[in-house]
Amino acid sequence: MTSGTGVGVVEPQRARFDAPLRLRSGQTLPGFELAYETYGTLNAARSNAILVCHALSGHQHVAGVHADAPNNLGWWDNIVGPGRPLDTDRFFVVGVNNLGGCHGSTGPASLNPATDAPWGRDFPIVTVEDWIEAQARLADRLGVSQWAATIGGSLGGMQAMQWTIEHPGRVRHALVIAAAPKLSAENIAFNEVARQAILSDPDYAAGKRPERGLRLARMLGHITYLSDDQMADKFGRRLRHGEYKYGFGVEFEVESYLRHQGDKFAGWFDADTYLRMTKALDYYDPAAACGGDLAAALAKAEAKFLVVSFTTDWRFSPERSREIVNALVKNHQNVAYAEIESQHGHDSFLMENAHYHRVVANYLANVKT
Amino acid sequence: MTSGTGVGVVEPQRARFDAPLRLRSGQTLPGFELAYETYGTLNAARSNAILVCHALSGHQHVAGVHADAPNNLGWWDNIVGPGRPLDTDRFFVVGVNNLGGCHGSTGPASLNPATDAPWGRDFPIVTVEDWIEAQARLADRLGVSQWAATIGGSLGGMQAMQWTIEHPGRVRHALVIAAAPKLSAENIAFNEVARQAILSDPDYAAGKRPERGLRLARMLGHITYLSDDQMADKFGRRLRHGEYKYGFGVEFEVESYLRHQGDKFAGWFDADTYLRMTKALDYYDPAAACGGDLAAALAKAEAKFLVVSFTTDWRFSPERSREIVNALVKNHQNVAYAEIESQHGHDSFLMENAHYHRVVANYLANVKT
Repeated sequence: MTSGTGVGVVEPQRARFDAPLRLRSGQTLPGFELAYETYGTLNAARSNAILVCHALSGHQHVAGVHADAPNNLGWWDNIVGPGRPLDTDRFFVVGVNNLGGCHGSTGPASLNPATDAPWGRDFPIVTVEDWIEAQARLADRLGVSQWAATIGGSLGGMQAMQWTIEHPGRVRHALVIAAAPKLSAENIAFNEVARQAILSDPDYAAGKRPERGLRLARMLGHITYLSDDQMADKFGRRLRHGEYKYGFGVEFEVESYLRHQGDKFAGWFDADTYLRMTKALDYYDPAAACGGDLAAALAKAEAKFLVVSFTTDWRFSPERSREIVNALVKNHQNVAYAEIESQHGHDSFLMENAHYHRVVANYLANVKT
Repeated sequence: MTSGTGVGVVEPQRARFDAPLRLRSGQTLPGFELAYETYGTLNAARSNAILVCHALSGHQHVAGVHADAPNNLGWWDNIVGPGRPLDTDRFFVVGVNNLGGCHGSTGPASLNPATDAPWGRDFPIVTVEDWIEAQARLADRLGVSQWAATIGGSLGGMQAMQWTIEHPGRVRHALVIAAAPKLSAENIAFNEVARQAILSDPDYAAGKRPERGLRLARMLGHITYLSDDQMADKFGRRLRHGEYKYGFGVEFEVESYLRHQGDKFAGWFDADTYLRMTKALDYYDPAAACGGDLAAALAKAEAKFLVVSFTTDWRFSPERSREIVNALVKNHQNVAYAEIESQHGHDSFLMENAHYHRVVANYLANVKT
């Protein structure tokens, strides 16, 4: 289990950037804000900073709690803190909400300066590359010219990797966890069903919050985050009422779990953010610029890599992580790879798993600050 | 490729059964009709009949064409006909639409005699066991006291198997293809998302056709019918417009495919039937009555079995078929098992695959009529 008290109470922070940001889509964002948090202390050499990149529904609140919400622990608190793998006694850890997000960074809920109304569905499509550029401005603001490491799971891992391509000189280590070098057709297909659930919700067309669509998107998402094995262990065919009721209420516990997860998510997440996060995933494909050659795309990276996958992850299976490893090996680049035995499917990267955390801790213990 | 001309023009048929049918749910259906078709000729001994059971969205039109719809080939035409694996020169093949269906058998679109209005969502929940009872009445009507074989894929395979448990003396062979002895939690979860898509469609609540929900359900279904590999081969990341458009229109060909499949299905399939077919899948679990012991549940079967699975089927993987095989082996029952190399995922059972068809043909060639 996680030991120690963690980072404790942390302060939400914001940074405003006034220079326009030209996006991959061709649109330009006229300035923006990023919501972020930091844990630990930036050393005098400014050489101990780690950037934590978030996944689809993540945000800047990575660790600790806020004074006004003492129970709302950061989403990766189990790995960040004094003595934890991202050891805040050694490292200055930065969490940031990505552009297009719904946790305080400029996104669909922000005011469009051209109209003084919320952007809503007019907010531009943003990409992993756009996020790196925004994060780079935050690094400049913090005085971090080079990250000791970039790290993330899933879509966050894609950002950790893309940093090494966009800004080779600004990353010493990239920890790419439960990620893939691009989505497969099946990955895109799942995203597309989730998007269509939102886009076809009549409330979305009516300019209202599409709770039905968000609920379905999240229910479907959860199936792909868990593993078949884990669902079998956690729910199996366990019945809510001990016997079949022959109706459309909850019969099986797994139905109850999914409905609950869907309802919860639909109550707070922004649909326009969700739509954009899934598009960023779909578009990500660094090899495309090199004719599909991932090794060529990664050749310019100067970072050392730790790639981690999980045995039961079927959203981004170990095979997908090995594509990244193989490309780096082909280039004679420095890469360590761990395939972690875990029952928790894609969600494993969020879970406390002694082997996994030891691998990350040992890797970072050897990162000079 | 399929050789010969197949069964040609076939005649839709209907049978009316006036005796009430007590359903597993406890409800009673006051008489019912079954839509069916037959191919080939019942021999004098009435010993050459094969029952084809359909899957989730299937029906009685298994082979050939109707005079008024010369292009609407039956869904399993490639396996049924003179010289085909279900050889209509030897066998009398019967296709039937299950109770609760939307192809002519009594279902949600039928008139409820108690109200003289369509049943709609008041139509009872039906189970695999209920279907067997209805099919048994059809067998009686046709003068078939014992099937030479029952056969089906997916949910159809569950029926083929359940016949051997419900009426051991009435089945000599069961061909159980791409099936499972029960749904896993993940299987149920996918069904639940599909149902929630329909049930939460405001048109459903308004008593209208929930096309949005049906569309989403079908899009999701298609992902689970195909394999990751096949989607990669068929679509990969191929773009509709050759470049990213950074919008919510079709970007990737796989999105176009899914939307097309969803739209097509939403235009004709009955939502209340869809809801009930997925529930029949969820409920099916013959081992439950024997404390979870599948071998005990199958012990009473007198049939011989052919069990077939497909390597890339992840809806009902080969492992699930082997559960059936292992239970039969444990009982020293007669079972042959083939695991077919196929790229087509769960849909493989519908595809023309020389090895698969040869296995079925060879098995049936040894079935006495």
